[in-house]
Amino acid sequence: MSDADFPETEFAERTTRAQRAMHAAGLDALFFTTEAEVRYFSGFRTLFWQSPTRPWFLVLPASGKPIAVIPQIGARLMAATWLDDIRPFSAPHPVDDGIGLLANVLKDFGTIGMPMGRESCLRMPLDDFRSLQKRLAGSQFVNASDLVQTLRMVKSDAELEKLRRICAIGSAAFARAPDLFRKGQTLREAFRAFRIELLTQGADDVPYLVGGAGKGGYGDVISPPTDRPLEEGDVLMLDTGAVRDGYFCDFDRNFAVGQATDDVRRAHETLVAAVHAAAAIARPGRTCVDLYRAMAETIGQKDGDVGRLGHGLGMQLTEAPSLTGFDGTVLREHMVLTLEPGIDLGNGKLMVHEENIVIRDGPPEFLSCPAEPDIPVLLN
Amino acid sequence: MSDADFPETEFAERTTRAQRAMHAAGLDALFFTTEAEVRYFSGFRTLFWQSPTRPWFLVLPASGKPIAVIPQIGARLMAATWLDDIRPFSAPHPVDDGIGLLANVLKDFGTIGMPMGRESCLRMPLDDFRSLQKRLAGSQFVNASDLVQTLRMVKSDAELEKLRRICAIGSAAFARAPDLFRKGQTLREAFRAFRIELLTQGADDVPYLVGGAGKGGYGDVISPPTDRPLEEGDVLMLDTGAVRDGYFCDFDRNFAVGQATDDVRRAHETLVAAVHAAAAIARPGRTCVDLYRAMAETIGQKDGDVGRLGHGLGMQLTEAPSLTGFDGTVLREHMVLTLEPGIDLGNGKLMVHEENIVIRDGPPEFLSCPAEPDIPVLLN
Repeated sequence: MSDADFPETEFAERTTRAQRAMHAAGLDALFFTTEAEVRYFSGFRTLFWQSPTRPWFLVLPASGKPIAVIPQIGARLMAATWLDDIRPFSAPHPVDDGIGLLANVLKDFGTIGMPMGRESCLRMPLDDFRSLQKRLAGSQFVNASDLVQTLRMVKSDAELEKLRRICAIGSAAFARAPDLFRKGQTLREAFRAFRIELLTQGADDVPYLVGGAGKGGYGDVISPPTDRPLEEGDVLMLDTGAVRDGYFCDFDRNFAVGQATDDVRRAHETLVAAVHAAAAIARPGRTCVDLYRAMAETIGQKDGDVGRLGHGLGMQLTEAPSLTGFDGTVLREHMVLTLEPGIDLGNGKLMVHEENIVIRDGPPEFLSCPAEPDIPVLLN
Repeated sequence: MSDADFPETEFAERTTRAQRAMHAAGLDALFFTTEAEVRYFSGFRTLFWQSPTRPWFLVLPASGKPIAVIPQIGARLMAATWLDDIRPFSAPHPVDDGIGLLANVLKDFGTIGMPMGRESCLRMPLDDFRSLQKRLAGSQFVNASDLVQTLRMVKSDAELEKLRRICAIGSAAFARAPDLFRKGQTLREAFRAFRIELLTQGADDVPYLVGGAGKGGYGDVISPPTDRPLEEGDVLMLDTGAVRDGYFCDFDRNFAVGQATDDVRRAHETLVAAVHAAAAIARPGRTCVDLYRAMAETIGQKDGDVGRLGHGLGMQLTEAPSLTGFDGTVLREHMVLTLEPGIDLGNGKLMVHEENIVIRDGPPEFLSCPAEPDIPVLLN
């Protein structure tokens, strides 16, 4: 596996941890259809998941290596992973996109866990899943979302190296903001310049780039860029999920175009203070609720307000856990989190700010180069 | 809807066509959870789908506009679309990620169509879907994949404009290959240079870029790039799905590094000939099987060999129909297709080639600037 993202020991360790948890939960197998889970246990990484045509299946038995049931087109790439048992099927197929083959693998297992809960989806046709269930009348499919999320939340040293690298790339790209963004530039042009900078700094891909710009704040934090030019007094925010070797950064930065109002300066200071209030208590043993409350108190957000103030980060832009008032997940060493407070400035304007940290036995490690309290002013 | 990708008439027309088909199929509503379908009927476009945390729901009743049941964080962006009825829920939520609200919208419909067949997935937790079904004991969920795919296959004039633009961007980027790729460059560097070129030429994003390089052909067409340097005698292939305004191109180009063997030259000529054999008969009334056979005969592929030789293209990198020996879909004007023959060169080497066309009343229109039979040789 010459170009693998990790040595085999990484996948063996993930598998052992999973099998220990499966034993405790009484599961005979885990069944996966989604990119992150298939990659987590096999190392199989390809952008080919962009095509919805073909389903991909991975079965993790209670002992031994995972078994891949996958389209022929991926067999060669999967053979380069640590897996030994790869069962390819011709796809697309006139009548059976791998269900017969998959049923044959799963038929020996009584209780089969699969992600069915929060944040999960079923990446195969529902009709095919129903047909699989009919063929496996003696088996039971149960929700294993918690088990899988609990495993993936805690990163290995090798994963942390990947995350350090992509976050450093993000920080380096944001540091070049004064050269990239200028008055009169459309938001679309600003986004394009930033994407190119991320790639130049070493990102493989930029699957996520959203943001906004507006006088004294922006109205929306999930929109694609418009052709509106940047104007004096705008607050510009870019939030990026760039990727290297299949691991994401996820943080944003705010910039004042030409000048910042006192309200904007204060909001930025408060957001940075909220991040540090959470970071100050982020230790093994504290909970997601604790971090949420530390940020919510700093920004003056009431419990029950919309949204969350951060989340897990790794192979996906967002992962479990969620920093909300109801997620009691206990922090553990090597969890990677985003701290993402937001402030409603009234009049439909808001500002958000985000950093990426690792929970350590002591103060957390910042993966993103943390923003200063003073909002940077772009003078171009 | 100042920054909308299309005027409201586009969405009204899509909705009317869908409702006509629903009437014929006896469906009281359509229910969607996936990005392409939600965007197709609403115009809601955001990269926020990268986050698996929140589900998004769209219901298309038998008459009237679609109804959006979506997380609060998207309410403002959705309000900028042509929709009137937007029902936001707080997400992530401790106990109900929108299922109660959704059940309330769907309860009035007896027969609810949703994509459950080939190429579909369920982008919501399976547990939540089961809970929805329990609440809607009087309703029946049926497979509407064919109905939705049939609608989306035929593009509007406005969609064709988007597709022309992104395919022209792809062609312009490939035209700069002699300046981008050179001996000694790693494949990872070549990919990065090509991504940056696509963005510079006007792409918004490059969600898909795969390829390979090897002496006399490559072994795999879905891999991420390695750090192996390009060498004299390599065949380099890049296959890109770049995006502008939410529409994809999907084609590739082959290059010989320094020199090409006779086998490689002949393979390239054959692949180009196969594309033109299919294009020569691509007319309304012919079928996907006809195009498949025209290519398969030219390249000497036997029926039953692995894979397909092209597919639909539009809001997704790959869409229905499939150019296979079993997809009898009849071609209609304004279908957009990729023609994608491949040749097995033996010794684990293969070559592929791909163009993008529109079915017209007469010869098809090439969206990609078609490759010449002679494989281009890079002399840097």
